[in-house]
Amino acid sequence: MRSPAIVEIFHIFLIMLILDESKSSVLEEQTFQKIFEYIDSHQDQFVKTLKDWVAVESDSIQPELRKEIIRMIEKAAKHLEDLGATVKVAEISTQQQLDGQNIPLPPAILANLKKDPAKPTVCFYGHVDVMPAKKADGWETEPYNLTEISGNLYGRGASDNKGPVLAWINTVATFKELNIDIPVNIKFLLEGMEEAGSLGLEELIKENKAFFSDVDYIVISDNTWLSNNKPALTYGTRGNACFAVKVEGGEKDLHSGALGGIVHEPMADLIALLDSLVNSSGYILIPGIYDNVAPLTHEERKLYEPITFNLSEYKDNVGVKTFLYNNKDEILLHLWRFPSLSIHGIEGAFHESGIKTVIPSRVIGKFSIRQVPHMNLTAVESQVKQHLEDIFSRRKSPNKLTVSMQMGAMPWIANINDLQYKAAGKAIKRVFGKDPDMIRDGSTIPIARMLQDITKKSVMMFPIGAADDGEHSQKEKISRSNYINGTKVFAAFLLEISKLHGESLETSNLKTVT
Amino acid sequence: MRSPAIVEIFHIFLIMLILDESKSSVLEEQTFQKIFEYIDSHQDQFVKTLKDWVAVESDSIQPELRKEIIRMIEKAAKHLEDLGATVKVAEISTQQQLDGQNIPLPPAILANLKKDPAKPTVCFYGHVDVMPAKKADGWETEPYNLTEISGNLYGRGASDNKGPVLAWINTVATFKELNIDIPVNIKFLLEGMEEAGSLGLEELIKENKAFFSDVDYIVISDNTWLSNNKPALTYGTRGNACFAVKVEGGEKDLHSGALGGIVHEPMADLIALLDSLVNSSGYILIPGIYDNVAPLTHEERKLYEPITFNLSEYKDNVGVKTFLYNNKDEILLHLWRFPSLSIHGIEGAFHESGIKTVIPSRVIGKFSIRQVPHMNLTAVESQVKQHLEDIFSRRKSPNKLTVSMQMGAMPWIANINDLQYKAAGKAIKRVFGKDPDMIRDGSTIPIARMLQDITKKSVMMFPIGAADDGEHSQKEKISRSNYINGTKVFAAFLLEISKLHGESLETSNLKTVT
Repeated sequence: MRSPAIVEIFHIFLIMLILDESKSSVLEEQTFQKIFEYIDSHQDQFVKTLKDWVAVESDSIQPELRKEIIRMIEKAAKHLEDLGATVKVAEISTQQQLDGQNIPLPPAILANLKKDPAKPTVCFYGHVDVMPAKKADGWETEPYNLTEISGNLYGRGASDNKGPVLAWINTVATFKELNIDIPVNIKFLLEGMEEAGSLGLEELIKENKAFFSDVDYIVISDNTWLSNNKPALTYGTRGNACFAVKVEGGEKDLHSGALGGIVHEPMADLIALLDSLVNSSGYILIPGIYDNVAPLTHEERKLYEPITFNLSEYKDNVGVKTFLYNNKDEILLHLWRFPSLSIHGIEGAFHESGIKTVIPSRVIGKFSIRQVPHMNLTAVESQVKQHLEDIFSRRKSPNKLTVSMQMGAMPWIANINDLQYKAAGKAIKRVFGKDPDMIRDGSTIPIARMLQDITKKSVMMFPIGAADDGEHSQKEKISRSNYINGTKVFAAFLLEISKLHGESLETSNLKTVT
Repeated sequence: MRSPAIVEIFHIFLIMLILDESKSSVLEEQTFQKIFEYIDSHQDQFVKTLKDWVAVESDSIQPELRKEIIRMIEKAAKHLEDLGATVKVAEISTQQQLDGQNIPLPPAILANLKKDPAKPTVCFYGHVDVMPAKKADGWETEPYNLTEISGNLYGRGASDNKGPVLAWINTVATFKELNIDIPVNIKFLLEGMEEAGSLGLEELIKENKAFFSDVDYIVISDNTWLSNNKPALTYGTRGNACFAVKVEGGEKDLHSGALGGIVHEPMADLIALLDSLVNSSGYILIPGIYDNVAPLTHEERKLYEPITFNLSEYKDNVGVKTFLYNNKDEILLHLWRFPSLSIHGIEGAFHESGIKTVIPSRVIGKFSIRQVPHMNLTAVESQVKQHLEDIFSRRKSPNKLTVSMQMGAMPWIANINDLQYKAAGKAIKRVFGKDPDMIRDGSTIPIARMLQDITKKSVMMFPIGAADDGEHSQKEKISRSNYINGTKVFAAFLLEISKLHGESLETSNLKTVT
């Protein structure tokens, strides 16, 4: 039993806290308003910077454009330095092996704004490289010239991932310009090889463990909402295993008239191999591939109920009239928590328009499998190889088969009860007026899993792009509104996480007092 | 019963003929020797001209190189004019439809050297366009810079077909330089769209029927011997039906992470369609496709016995270690008189090196069927379409399928008892010291069938290239020896056909006398 005097003192203490809270709430509201107004009134300047960044063809797929990535990294480093950050442009030691050639990797950025040990530390990850894009691929605008049409900013990298990286930088710039003390310590990890599988980044993070040791929260903004208008927070992503299936016949390409009918054609072998991978319902035919997929629990299924998903809007965004499934749950489950297999193309065969009556001598099929927890990359690799070798051996072809996993990235899943998910939820509610959808992503962001595994810190994916942003497509864009509100929501998140982090510390203290 | 006086007169007539024959034989031998010596001593000049022709990138597959074909046609016309020919550079009225655009076709050449009504008329057909070639495709030499290595002249078009066209022109030049009267009238038909399917040529020939009305023999030299060292004459070719299978999904390419697992992927549909065409034994799986193939008779099979065919040499030439068949007859039968199906590649999918995790929205598979007598192009087209539509409908895919026959060329077969086959046999025996193999060709030379159908004249294919010339490959060449001996054998053929033609007329006259 407690003594009455102690109870009185406790009550007075509580009243003081509430009074203090209400005074600080008014101050806080003013801070939010000041920040949001600044961001709104400087939006043209923010768009201009994005245009400048999009103009750099920092394509990480084509090795000859490596120098453009380096230029982009230098540009980003300059921005951060101008904001007062201490920037380390970190060389990545790993070399990329491509056709036997060593191609140096571009450096990454490790930056931090001044350190206050009393504040929590948030580390933001982003990438400044992009997927290839050419006007000839079917773009209506010049892919490297950010073009605004009806409130949308079209350009390669606008949404994936230059826009979100700049939104974060804009946030820091806003605090600085307004002379408002940022309530958290901020670090940046920016890379230039994400689209090629974040080559060399794992080693870099391992070598720089000290950089992450005082980090409390890691935020990634490299995906999109599930819908065009409702914000979301992402707690899981699929992994990706990319395969190359090479079939080699004779020494040279042959003429289909001169040799057709007596040759074991490598293309026929490859087509049969590729046709053995997935059926017309999207079911993967590789034996054992589903063995390690986590069973779907009742609790997990219930998470899908509150999600807003407009199927007709989604179809419009994707540009597809009919999907393999026709209801929300099946669609989301097959995008997020079941594996999928896609065939991307063939290298070495005739690929131009017109006619070429060639029997190609060496062809390489490219496909990839998006894996989910608890699929194991090593198991996937051996299942794929075993299956293709079995199919090939049945053909009794004298050609040479080589199956290789070109890239392997693990799936990722986070705990949605982590404090930063709550802070982000509050920030979203404040800026957009609604609670976020709690979603997963069918895409692979290897960095989420990698950062979680190496640093053991809480990782959150906090998208600001909309579902119709068309990442990797010929219509990539970010809307002006998402870019600007994204800047606001990051600012709000900094204020909210600082508060929640502080409260959680106070609660611990209170617990100690009581 | 004949009277003794008549018998006496006939005997004297015969003796006179024999004396005259022996005198003319000596003269004839001298003519052959003089011609052969001239060709030998001018070979460097002939090679230089071939180098000059190969330097023109007269690629008829890539529309942007059309002007180079025109330049090549002009160059050939100039050569013929310099030899005293009357040259008509004939515009081809048909326009090539490519992606909705009209691209004008290059003109063809109709030329003739002075007409003597007492002499037979031989018309030579050749083409001056080539297949595409880039150093990057794997050429060891520059494809458009004729390069001599160990007696071989490497370059695109060296054997297909600039070398043989020039061998014929060299022949005419030799007669002219030696002031020897050519014993036949000669015409030339040279085109610039053969590799693209001789577009517009059929109309041209039909419009110029008068040009062919006084022609006795049509000679084509647009294929190769069966072996590296033994000459051949060709009496049949396969046809070719080229197909494009287009599968269209959504409006744009998609990201395999963002959408993989819920989309009916056009590539999976296309791969299944292509995999339904031919099995691992090379057997075509399209229902009905073999229905119209002429049954193989005992007599026809016997034609294969005397053919020289070194399987191991053939494998070396082709660069393939194991064929679908392991004996001469099966190999030749499957190359010459059975149909075959080859898959050439896919347009619209990822085709570069590296990784691109794309779900392509619109993919076009390219394959072709080499047909044989008596397969019918219209039937083949409808069988292919029906089959692919059946396979596609079983997949229940919402994607859009379009099957089109991009090009159709009929097979050709000639009568090997025609007089010019005998003359060519004699010429070959004289230059090479052996009888030719009587062969067919697995490739398609639509012009053979076309000229036979429209002009109703005897058509012969008289190759001078060797089996290892690598037409359409990255190692195309003609040997210096084949090019120079090819020039000789064409000259010898002119002398032999003139003689045989004259004798056949005399025999007719004698028959009239007796």
